[in-house]
Amino acid sequence: MRLIFIGLLLISSIGQAADCLPRGTGDLGIIIERAAGSVQVVDTTHRKALFRVEGLGDLSHASAVYSRDARYAYVFGRDGGLSKVDLLCGMLVKRVVQGGNSIGGAISQDGRLIAVSNYEPGGVKVFSAETLELVANIPATKTPEGKGSKTVGLVDAPGQRFVFSLYDTDEVWVADMSDPKSPKLTQFKEAGRHPYDGLITPDGRYYIAGLFGEDGLTLLDLWHIDKGPTRILSHYGKGEQQLPVYKMPHLEGWAVAGDLAFLPAIGHYEVLVVNRSNWQPAGTVPVYGQPVFAMAQPDGRQIWVNFAFPNNDTIQVIDTETLKVIKTLKPGKGALHMEFAPRGEEVWISIRDEDRVKIFDTTTLEQIGSLPVDKPSGIFFTSRAHKIGL
Amino acid sequence: MRLIFIGLLLISSIGQAADCLPRGTGDLGIIIERAAGSVQVVDTTHRKALFRVEGLGDLSHASAVYSRDARYAYVFGRDGGLSKVDLLCGMLVKRVVQGGNSIGGAISQDGRLIAVSNYEPGGVKVFSAETLELVANIPATKTPEGKGSKTVGLVDAPGQRFVFSLYDTDEVWVADMSDPKSPKLTQFKEAGRHPYDGLITPDGRYYIAGLFGEDGLTLLDLWHIDKGPTRILSHYGKGEQQLPVYKMPHLEGWAVAGDLAFLPAIGHYEVLVVNRSNWQPAGTVPVYGQPVFAMAQPDGRQIWVNFAFPNNDTIQVIDTETLKVIKTLKPGKGALHMEFAPRGEEVWISIRDEDRVKIFDTTTLEQIGSLPVDKPSGIFFTSRAHKIGL
Repeated sequence: MRLIFIGLLLISSIGQAADCLPRGTGDLGIIIERAAGSVQVVDTTHRKALFRVEGLGDLSHASAVYSRDARYAYVFGRDGGLSKVDLLCGMLVKRVVQGGNSIGGAISQDGRLIAVSNYEPGGVKVFSAETLELVANIPATKTPEGKGSKTVGLVDAPGQRFVFSLYDTDEVWVADMSDPKSPKLTQFKEAGRHPYDGLITPDGRYYIAGLFGEDGLTLLDLWHIDKGPTRILSHYGKGEQQLPVYKMPHLEGWAVAGDLAFLPAIGHYEVLVVNRSNWQPAGTVPVYGQPVFAMAQPDGRQIWVNFAFPNNDTIQVIDTETLKVIKTLKPGKGALHMEFAPRGEEVWISIRDEDRVKIFDTTTLEQIGSLPVDKPSGIFFTSRAHKIGL
Repeated sequence: MRLIFIGLLLISSIGQAADCLPRGTGDLGIIIERAAGSVQVVDTTHRKALFRVEGLGDLSHASAVYSRDARYAYVFGRDGGLSKVDLLCGMLVKRVVQGGNSIGGAISQDGRLIAVSNYEPGGVKVFSAETLELVANIPATKTPEGKGSKTVGLVDAPGQRFVFSLYDTDEVWVADMSDPKSPKLTQFKEAGRHPYDGLITPDGRYYIAGLFGEDGLTLLDLWHIDKGPTRILSHYGKGEQQLPVYKMPHLEGWAVAGDLAFLPAIGHYEVLVVNRSNWQPAGTVPVYGQPVFAMAQPDGRQIWVNFAFPNNDTIQVIDTETLKVIKTLKPGKGALHMEFAPRGEEVWISIRDEDRVKIFDTTTLEQIGSLPVDKPSGIFFTSRAHKIGL
């Protein structure tokens, strides 16, 4: 009898072990299935799906960050949902609805805190990465109507900080989370009219906010925070002609290659080139449509650009030395998002209207594989766990 | 009887599962225990050792690279041993003695190939990352005495290439491994007198070899390989004074921060500062001893420097803006190697003579923890899996 009992006990343990086999997590990723509210967990070495995890709510514009052990993805949904997904077991570990309407999040430098920026109610909430319990609440400045400003462009920065922008009240805030329960805030007012998105340079030094209410961008040097924000690229924006803008470009799509940064122009069929040492314009590259993401290969050799509707069936590849388009690809309609293998040998591209993710070799620029994915949008690989600002 | 049989079968499976529990591998690393010929597998989140793996042979000057899934470390020993260590199970998976005397290795961009550079017999051998079976053998040029040149400074480069130098015959070679069984070689002769080590910039563009036989360094622009190698920093070297050099600095310790590179001077108590855009000197920083490694924090804000005997009880921290030493630490005798957490919040330092690895906070510059390790030398975290040239 005793042996039988042990046998049964072990069967139940095996059941778990079989679902969560030991494997490295360095070559995993998730792909957002926007319409279904699910994610696929993928193995990038064998180019195959491992799991589908469902029940993540509204995943329009969803993004994700990774735990420092690269096992868990934190998925930020549009409906205020924050979901912790276990990539090894293909399981939703926990989900909290932390706001009414949210846009993006970040993980702290030490990996212990998850921050989410909210439209409704405006502000940033900070959670334990382990338990998703609320650690700190940072409400935004109230507008004259008494509502908290929409909060956008949230990133992590070195020194256990989060940086974000307040859309309605034209502010940039820096929250030092060294003492997690008592965020130390530095608040910059009049930091540009309606910041709508933000980015941090890969070294974590410069925070840049895009402005919806005026031309130019706001730059904050986090090495010299006492100097406050300055304005750069004053001709960057919608300009006087007020072109129709089909989609405001994503700033996290900014590409840095050598001394240059590449950014999608707003409303124009151009990628702008900027000198990184002084943030002055250094040229433009004419492209096929209104760019949405301009992303640099990890080796900085090429920039891959996708476009707003009706040109979103196309991807163009720019050589960062000659500043010329060297290839125009037609991977399919709804080419929404790109993600590079960490060492840059291939790029995965979501083709929404074909329900496929297509994989291209970055040397030959040829398609080398694909996976079926239900209305794919964002693709996020675990190598992001080790990068500042991602 | 049948049930009993199942029970026993399961017990044996559980035995394995218990040793190899599912967990993420993004926060793991290994520390070389040089004298014992073993490595410790460490968890950097909880700052603790998980396993000791023994039987790796002579680990003087040992280095390591990681599989693309961040589960396996490939350890290159001085005795020609190539060992594949499973970090999840704390196990030596396989060990081959592939040469008589070797120095370093690399993993290909796609993660499928491991290359090892050998002193004896000179040349590079390429193995399957999966099985450690020999895939290709690239013998070095023979010296007049009929021996193959010692091969050094081996790195991986984008485009599935390996780059390395031939010490005795003054060459730099580039091997394109796109067809693994038929390496396509580009060989540069008269590439500088006795290259003794090499590095590749973090973007994988520039290969730089240090020269033992003359001053200056050899630079190869891998974006324009047809132009061949050129000489840079002609005053970099032992110079005419022929100072005693206690230890030739490690070139993989070169630090890149913003527009500047920082490199250990040879024989002088200085760190040299170089402008990255034209490879011209941009200043020197006086330091406490002959520098061995000058390593940049991931955010580029500070450079950490250790020193050759008799000054190897000291670490200095340089501010990359002011180019001044801002802190002198005395962590203990035999401060041999440093490794940063991938987002830079802390640095782990091997203190050989105290049999400890000490951990410092990069913001406060205070010690925040330590681990007992038997004669620690190299420290290698799994985030290297995702970096070009590491």
